[in-house]
Parts: sequence; structure tokens; C-alpha cells
Amino acid sequence: MEIRTATNADRDAVWNIFREVVAPGDTYALDSNMSREEALAYWFRADTHTYVAEEFRQSVGKAMGSSGTAMPSPIVSRQDRNIVGTYILRPNQSGGGAHVANAAFMVAADARGHGVGRRMAEHCLSEARRMGFLAMQFSFVVSTNTRAIDLWKQLGFKIVGTLPGAFRHPEKGYVDVHVMYRALA
Amino acid sequence: MEIRTATNADRDAVWNIFREVVAPGDTYALDSNMSREEALAYWFRADTHTYVAEEFRQSVGKAMGSSGTAMPSPIVSRQDRNIVGTYILRPNQSGGGAHVANAAFMVAADARGHGVGRRMAEHCLSEARRMGFLAMQFSFVVSTNTRAIDLWKQLGFKIVGTLPGAFRHPEKGYVDVHVMYRALA
Repeated sequence: MEIRTATNADRDAVWNIFREVVAPGDTYALDSNMSREEALAYWFRADTHTYVAEEFRQSVGKAMGSSGTAMPSPIVSRQDRNIVGTYILRPNQSGGGAHVANAAFMVAADARGHGVGRRMAEHCLSEARRMGFLAMQFSFVVSTNTRAIDLWKQLGFKIVGTLPGAFRHPEKGYVDVHVMYRALA
Repeated sequence: MEIRTATNADRDAVWNIFREVVAPGDTYALDSNMSREEALAYWFRADTHTYVAEEFRQSVGKAMGSSGTAMPSPIVSRQDRNIVGTYILRPNQSGGGAHVANAAFMVAADARGHGVGRRMAEHCLSEARRMGFLAMQFSFVVSTNTRAIDLWKQLGFKIVGTLPGAFRHPEKGYVDVHVMYRALA
């Protein structure tokens, strides 16, 4: 897997992941009916660094005869490239708050549970340090998103505040939201 | 004093206050060199309700003779209108976070210490309730801005989180930032 800066050629793949993540309305405080245009404007904003995680899969197989029987046949080998995640990194605030980074992560539904989020988060922390950010803040971590919260804790983030009932979960109703923070020194 | 929705005719007055408040860089995490255009785009954003506090002052005085001596003269009376503050009210987040309001307040330098901020904040809480918001959040209250913090506490806000060193104060260096929150039930 390679994590690299997103290009215009990645916009379709990013939109597919974005739509898939935002539609259920259970993790991001974004309008689940956002249009492609609005979504990409948000994810590729001028002050934002946008990245994708690209998976390379070596496919090796035998070409089959049309009857399905095992005929002598050439070995077929090709490399599939597949965008499995995307993340953004930007200043959390302007002016006197611009030394703190903000970031957001999205993983394709069929790629979850394989460490893509963790790999992107580690990449993100490294990029943020390289750019000179002194801390990183997640301003709106929905408390029911325990997989994300556990990962952020493992990566050194602490819950520094909790907003009571600040997120309306589609099934669970009003749930708390955490503000998470870590220094990058 | 009247607090009312801002119109295009108020843009010059709003810009004057905005510039005056943001220039020192000690309370708002905004670029202190923001242009008029950027500032007004931010303060009059599509999802934002923008208000001004307008002071009416009845000026009554005697017209003086050019010598300065007390000559019989007509009484002069006129009404001065003066924009002394402005505030914005908007959803803090979209989607599942849209029931929480966010607000920001600015008072003209020569009008401070006369309760303009408090009057605007009370008006804002009332407007937010009227619009159906269930809570209000201030996401970035610089800890050295004790006058604002005291006022928010008096108005029922609590510090629900503190971001260590998240604001670079022009004189005091890195200082903490509070997240403040209150329900509107």
C-alpha cells in the first residue's frame, strides 16, 4: 500500500469513499446528501492537503477455456491499483491557531479492519510534523465511533473535552462528542 | 440600543469593528491581515445570521457664537446612529451536529465595558432558541480573554474542554484555549 498526495485523477475514487462514509450519517457531522461537487470542494479545499491510500494487488490466474475445463493456458498476471482510503490535513484554525493541525480520515467499506486507517493516521502525524505543526486536534469525534477513538488513543491522542449530546446519531439519538488532542513535539 | 439583522448598508461599520478586533491577534484565531473582502465573506457567510448592535444617541447642545461667548442661540437636537457591535449565529456543524449553534461576538473598541457584549449574547441565546437550536458551543475561547470567559459563565456556559497551548498569543506566547458549551433547553 502506498499513501500519496491525491491528484485530480483520484477524484472519482475519493468521491466514492466519501459518499459511502458520509451517507449513513453516523460518524461525520456532514450533510449526508452532500453533492459530489460540495464534497470534493470540502475535501480538496485550498488550505487542505489531501492524500489517498492506494493498494497494489498482484492478480495471478489461469485463463480458462470457455467450457471451464482445465485446458493448457497462459498464466495471466496483472497489477490492480485500488484507492482504499483518503485523508485530509490542514490547519485547525487561522492566525494564532495555525500551529495546530486538523485531520479527517475515510476508509472504503470493503477495506475496513485491515489497518488502512492506522497507516493513514501514522502517515498524517509524520506529515504534520514535517510541515511544522506543533499539535493535532480532532474537534468532533462521535463517542459511538469507538473504533476510531481506540485508534486515536493508541496513537497518543487524549480526550480533552466532551460535548454533551452534540451529535444526533441516526439510530442512537443524541450522543456525546469528544474533542481529542495530542502534541507533536 | 437596538440589536437587529445586519444589512448590506452595515458592511462598512462591520468591517471597521472586525478589523479593530482581529488586528491585535489576541482573541480570534483569524489572520490579522484578512482583507475586507475575506472578512465580510466570513462574517456574512450563507449559513450565517449576522446581527449588529446600533446605539442611538440624542445629542442636545447650544450653537456657539464664533467668539465662544454665550450668545442667545437655537437649541440643536439630532439623533446619532452608531454601530457599536456585531455578532454571528450559525450551526456549529452540518448533518448530525446541526442542532448545536455556534456564535461569535465583536464590540467596537470605544464601546467596550458598557454591556454591549452581554446584550448581544442575550439576544443571541434568544435567537438561537427561536431557531430551534438545542445547545450553543464556543469552540475556541482563548484562556487569556478572561472578560469573555466570565461573561459566558454568567450566561450559563461551562468549560467542557481545554486545548493545551492551542493559541499563540502575540505577547504571552502559547496559551490554552477553552471549549465552552451550554444547553438551550
